[in-house]
Amino acid sequence: MKQYKILFFIGDGLGDRPVKKLSGKTPLEYADKPNIRELLKSAIIGLMDPISPGVVPGSDTSHLSMFGLDPHIYYRGRGAFEAIGAGARLESGDVAFRGNFATVSNDLVVIDRRAGRKIEEAEELVKELNEKIREIDGVKVRFYHATEHRVAVVLSGKGLGDKVSDTDPHEVNKKVLESKPLDSSPESLFTANIVNKLTKRIYEVLSSSEINKKRISEGKLPANIILMRGAAKYIELPRFESYTKLKAAAVSATALIKGICEQIGMRVVTPPGATGGLDTNYLGKADAAAELLKEYDFVFLHLKATDAASHDGNIDGKVYAIQKIDEMIGRILDKFGSELVIGITGDHTTPVEVKEHAGDPVPFLLYVPYSIITDNVNDFNEREARKGSLRIKGLDVLNILLNYSNRAEKYGA
Amino acid sequence: MKQYKILFFIGDGLGDRPVKKLSGKTPLEYADKPNIRELLKSAIIGLMDPISPGVVPGSDTSHLSMFGLDPHIYYRGRGAFEAIGAGARLESGDVAFRGNFATVSNDLVVIDRRAGRKIEEAEELVKELNEKIREIDGVKVRFYHATEHRVAVVLSGKGLGDKVSDTDPHEVNKKVLESKPLDSSPESLFTANIVNKLTKRIYEVLSSSEINKKRISEGKLPANIILMRGAAKYIELPRFESYTKLKAAAVSATALIKGICEQIGMRVVTPPGATGGLDTNYLGKADAAAELLKEYDFVFLHLKATDAASHDGNIDGKVYAIQKIDEMIGRILDKFGSELVIGITGDHTTPVEVKEHAGDPVPFLLYVPYSIITDNVNDFNEREARKGSLRIKGLDVLNILLNYSNRAEKYGA
Repeated sequence: MKQYKILFFIGDGLGDRPVKKLSGKTPLEYADKPNIRELLKSAIIGLMDPISPGVVPGSDTSHLSMFGLDPHIYYRGRGAFEAIGAGARLESGDVAFRGNFATVSNDLVVIDRRAGRKIEEAEELVKELNEKIREIDGVKVRFYHATEHRVAVVLSGKGLGDKVSDTDPHEVNKKVLESKPLDSSPESLFTANIVNKLTKRIYEVLSSSEINKKRISEGKLPANIILMRGAAKYIELPRFESYTKLKAAAVSATALIKGICEQIGMRVVTPPGATGGLDTNYLGKADAAAELLKEYDFVFLHLKATDAASHDGNIDGKVYAIQKIDEMIGRILDKFGSELVIGITGDHTTPVEVKEHAGDPVPFLLYVPYSIITDNVNDFNEREARKGSLRIKGLDVLNILLNYSNRAEKYGA
Repeated sequence: MKQYKILFFIGDGLGDRPVKKLSGKTPLEYADKPNIRELLKSAIIGLMDPISPGVVPGSDTSHLSMFGLDPHIYYRGRGAFEAIGAGARLESGDVAFRGNFATVSNDLVVIDRRAGRKIEEAEELVKELNEKIREIDGVKVRFYHATEHRVAVVLSGKGLGDKVSDTDPHEVNKKVLESKPLDSSPESLFTANIVNKLTKRIYEVLSSSEINKKRISEGKLPANIILMRGAAKYIELPRFESYTKLKAAAVSATALIKGICEQIGMRVVTPPGATGGLDTNYLGKADAAAELLKEYDFVFLHLKATDAASHDGNIDGKVYAIQKIDEMIGRILDKFGSELVIGITGDHTTPVEVKEHAGDPVPFLLYVPYSIITDNVNDFNEREARKGSLRIKGLDVLNILLNYSNRAEKYGA
């Protein structure tokens, strides 16, 4: 029984609804996709609900599902995955926050939630924080720089909880909030206390930092606080290889997705020029995937551009990105060949006229390199997918890929 | 509201994929099925995922699902069901192993994993073991003979666990393995210990048995050890009649399936000549089912031949067995009449070109003896089933049979 390699391609936010400007077609219907249409000769298609029908997925919960991990068990908030994406090594029980360098007045009223956004000295500031704040009341504290004004803050120690409120008021001209316990557990009370003491210490360190004094002298806003949000207790995820027996690699440029992939033990590659935007290096990512397919059993290829265009309401951009996906598929088939199982779908629908995630099902395509009963459809899009034989959930995706690549383990005897 | 009797027919491993030799048809598409086609005039069809999409089912987990019992709750491994099939009466907490009579050297290196396979004295050897080994460290031990070299070993007592490794090295020229705990629980450690002491005792008893001395003098391999594998803690299954209110009977020749049916309290019948192979007594099984339908509300008819042919890669054999299924249906309709609800499906797909179970959905047919909105398909097979209205899981099967036979209890008010 021949085992095939697996390419799993996610166009982030791929799904859509009829778009007026496209005469009622969706971007996926409108886009020209010769390579994907060719796959339909040996494919089944259908609709996939990333979580369950109508539930609006985040990219994180959807990816966990599609990697076979029930987000109702493993998802505790975005903070932990972003911290890992920013380079943190977390252990079970750690609590991570997403944070912004921001500018506050002397009485802690927020002047700019991003301290100007581009903060060249962010790495140095994080270094200074890590040197000067090592612990609060026995709880270890670490800071990580992500991109621009974004940081991750990680607490390690006994008795921490993630049911605490944000210090980020999410608006300017408001005072930095006190973190409050969101339930009556001792963990929440203890953690909220730590967060409030930590916030004061951060302000003390940053407001007296030479770096900020220099910024002020240069007419820049001082990055004199970190606004914290999204407390998330880290639960160690199972390793992908341990529950699938597959050597897996991922190609992605998005911190959140990279964080999840790293956490489940995939090798993660971000090729030069891969940006997470419409200007990304599409063919560079395809080439990286084709190369990884030689060595790995399972290659996950993630493209953010479709979602970026959707959030911006950029209809032409979304069509462009989808046509680029088709080019990427063609490139991989050219470079690696068609002797592999291919799954193509989105992690959720982001209707380009809505500009936000939606809970609609997403079209799913499964190509196999052998004879299969096909669904006799002419194209791969939201409309044709309704005629297909698949009607699955995100948690089914990995099982289907394993089954049709002849790599599944039998459940029972 | 008239309540109908239910015939539930499983062709083991019935589902398939397009087969080259059959011009891209599946065996079910290729086979001539006049009686089943006739049923389509008052039937709905569709696809059934025995566990969930893509999951490769064992026959045991699939049958549990179709009988309405979630295998994620009730399935603990094949050993317990096989022991019951071999005549064991198990209680919750018992740990059962599948075992082979085997031949080992003085230093416990395996010479033949089946001691020649046909062991005429197997019943006597089991009797001797039961007389001489009644307990190990307070744990009760029982031995049961299944068929040929196959035995079941059952441990009863407090504090047993099933997370222990096999003593069967699964290869000749290897030493009998020490059973090891597979987790850090005291139950696992305790049980592995018992298994290792038991293995030594079995060797002592069998190697000094007069029966084996006689076998050696006749030039036969002595059956001087039992290789144990597949530890499974028994969880008592609910009785079918208690949760369905149906008097149920099963016709099967397969130990694993018979074990499950007996455990849920079905009457189990194996007609003369029923073998579990392609040479089985097809019409004898049909006659038995027709007869049982007079007395029972629910008759389960299991045919192994389709799966046996699939595992052997015997394409013609699979087509033949399917045509025999059609004959069996015709025979039951002749003998009992068509005033009954009939479900026909497979417990999983075993593609005859793959020769192993697969996680593809299986076609499902539901015939009812009254007017129903049919699916307007011309045949019952994997391709036509995609056009049908049913898209169900194994756990839905029993509910559907109960509903359309007007035997379901309302859930709620």
